[in-house]
This record gives sequence, C-alpha cells and structure tokens, in this order.
Amino acid sequence: METKTAAAQTAVINSEAFLKHWQAHRGLTRRVIEAFPEKDLFLYSIGGMRPFVQLAMEIIDLTNPGIVGLVTNEWKNMNELPHSSGEGVPTTKEELLVLWDETTQQLERYWAKFTPDRFEDKVLAFGTYEGKVASTLFYFVDNEIHHRGQGYVYLRALGIEPPYFWQR
Amino acid sequence: METKTAAAQTAVINSEAFLKHWQAHRGLTRRVIEAFPEKDLFLYSIGGMRPFVQLAMEIIDLTNPGIVGLVTNEWKNMNELPHSSGEGVPTTKEELLVLWDETTQQLERYWAKFTPDRFEDKVLAFGTYEGKVASTLFYFVDNEIHHRGQGYVYLRALGIEPPYFWQR
Repeated sequence: METKTAAAQTAVINSEAFLKHWQAHRGLTRRVIEAFPEKDLFLYSIGGMRPFVQLAMEIIDLTNPGIVGLVTNEWKNMNELPHSSGEGVPTTKEELLVLWDETTQQLERYWAKFTPDRFEDKVLAFGTYEGKVASTLFYFVDNEIHHRGQGYVYLRALGIEPPYFWQR
Repeated sequence: METKTAAAQTAVINSEAFLKHWQAHRGLTRRVIEAFPEKDLFLYSIGGMRPFVQLAMEIIDLTNPGIVGLVTNEWKNMNELPHSSGEGVPTTKEELLVLWDETTQQLERYWAKFTPDRFEDKVLAFGTYEGKVASTLFYFVDNEIHHRGQGYVYLRALGIEPPYFWQR
C-alpha cells in the first residue's frame, strides 16, 4: 500500500522534542494554577466537577510516579495516589506549586534514563492500563491539556482571563 | 552530554501512528458534538466564551485547510476561515457533523501525500504562525483537546454526561 511506505515510518517527534513539548505544556498549566484565587482553586467547580486542585493533582500523579513507572516498569496502583485516595493533596496554592515544581524536576531526571527504542515497549500503567510507552506518554499529556482546558472555563466563569493557550 | 545520545533522537511516534492518534481524538470530539442538545450546541456558553459550535468550527478550520497547507505549503489566511469570519458556519448539528466527516476524509487523503522528512520543515501556518510541520500538527491536535475539554464542562453544566475521555 502506498501509505505503508517510508513516510508512514517517519518520526513526527523524537524523544528530546517530546520532553520539551511536555514541559512547555507543564509551564502553561502552572500559570493556570497561579491564575486561580486561593479559595477558588480548592472550592470552585462547575456542574459537579472537581475543583481545579484535584484536576492538577491528577496531572501531577500521572506525571510522577507515571514517569518512574514508564522508565523502571515499577508502578504504584492508581488508588494509592493522592488524587484517588485524597491523602497527600496540598491544602494551599503554594504547597501545590512546590509539588508541581518537584514533579517537573522528577520528569526531567527520569526522562534522561529512557533507553533507545523503549517507546514501543508494552506497559501496564499503574498496574491497570494496557498500552505502549509512547501511547501512555501521549495519554498523560493529552489528559493534562484536557483538564487544563476545563480550568480555563472555571477561570472565565470567575471573570479571570486565563493565560494564552499558545504561549508556552 | 548524556541526554544528547541516541535516546534523544529516538522517535516517540511515527507518521502512521500520529494520524491514527489524531483521528481517534477526532472520533471523540465528534461524540462530544453529538452529545450536545441542538439548541445548546449553538447558544450555550459559560463565562462569555464561545458556544461549542464555534469551538468545533475552529477545530475544523485548523484541521482542514490546515492539513492542505502543511502538505502543499499553500495557506489560506486565518481571517478568511469560517470560525474567524463567521461565514459558512453550519446552522444545524447535522450540517456540522457532515462538515466534520468531510474534514476527517480530507485529513486522511492529504496525510497520504506527506513525503518523508517533511515534518522538520519550517512553515508559516495560515500565513502567520511560524513553526515546523511537526510542531504545527501538535498545535492542531492540542488545540482540539483543549477546546473539547471545555465542551466537557459545558455538557456537565447542562447535566449531560460526556463520553469517556479515554474511550477513543
């Protein structure tokens, strides 16, 4: 088939660029956290959804220990993580930002340990979700964009202008 | 530097997998459009944001003519497109879904024309946005996830359960 030629196998993004892309998204999400008034970060929500602190906590939990799992194949179970168990969730914006920045550093540290051709390996993320390393990475980033987009609506409903989506 | 080894250059995703990933996202966005009551698709919004039809129209406009621009290097200007000009925006859900499906087919058709190693080429998307083919593609998909996530909040606020994010 014509589409099964070299073009189909061409890399769209390599490991180094993917990390940069992800960290740029994380920088934007950090600015969304900062944009929330302290109280609203923990209490405000729409339509029975979770307040943004809990969405941010889910993003933190997938990023790390997620990256540790992808690199080492050792996974924590999803229900042990703060966004599921409710334990260890920060109670101030400042604490959340500290945890955010530690996660950013942990991602950087573990990414450097990825060995070539690991991206196609099968994984059972958090002991539950079947996929490959690459598809799991995309899931983590896509999930961050998805929930951050929801944070944009919360901010708009609060009369606050969110950071520009394209400014990363 | 240790991180500038082969691992840094390893492909995270190839052309064929990227298209599949994008089309799976498009399938989910289509289900979000379907989940909206006809009236709310065109009128409902939160915090002064655009109704979901306009967010969907922006996604359509970036996907096509976006994909044509990326493949052929011939770009329409952003302000000529329906989501900017307001002209040619569907007035019923059925029309929007027909346009959605035509866009899906156009993406499939033009993707097959991508030549190897095109992804690193510089582009000026819509005559305005500097980037590379790959980063522009990521922008299009990320923008879709971002706005669809906002649609989830609209649906929740309307008391409607959106499709599962992970079901693609």
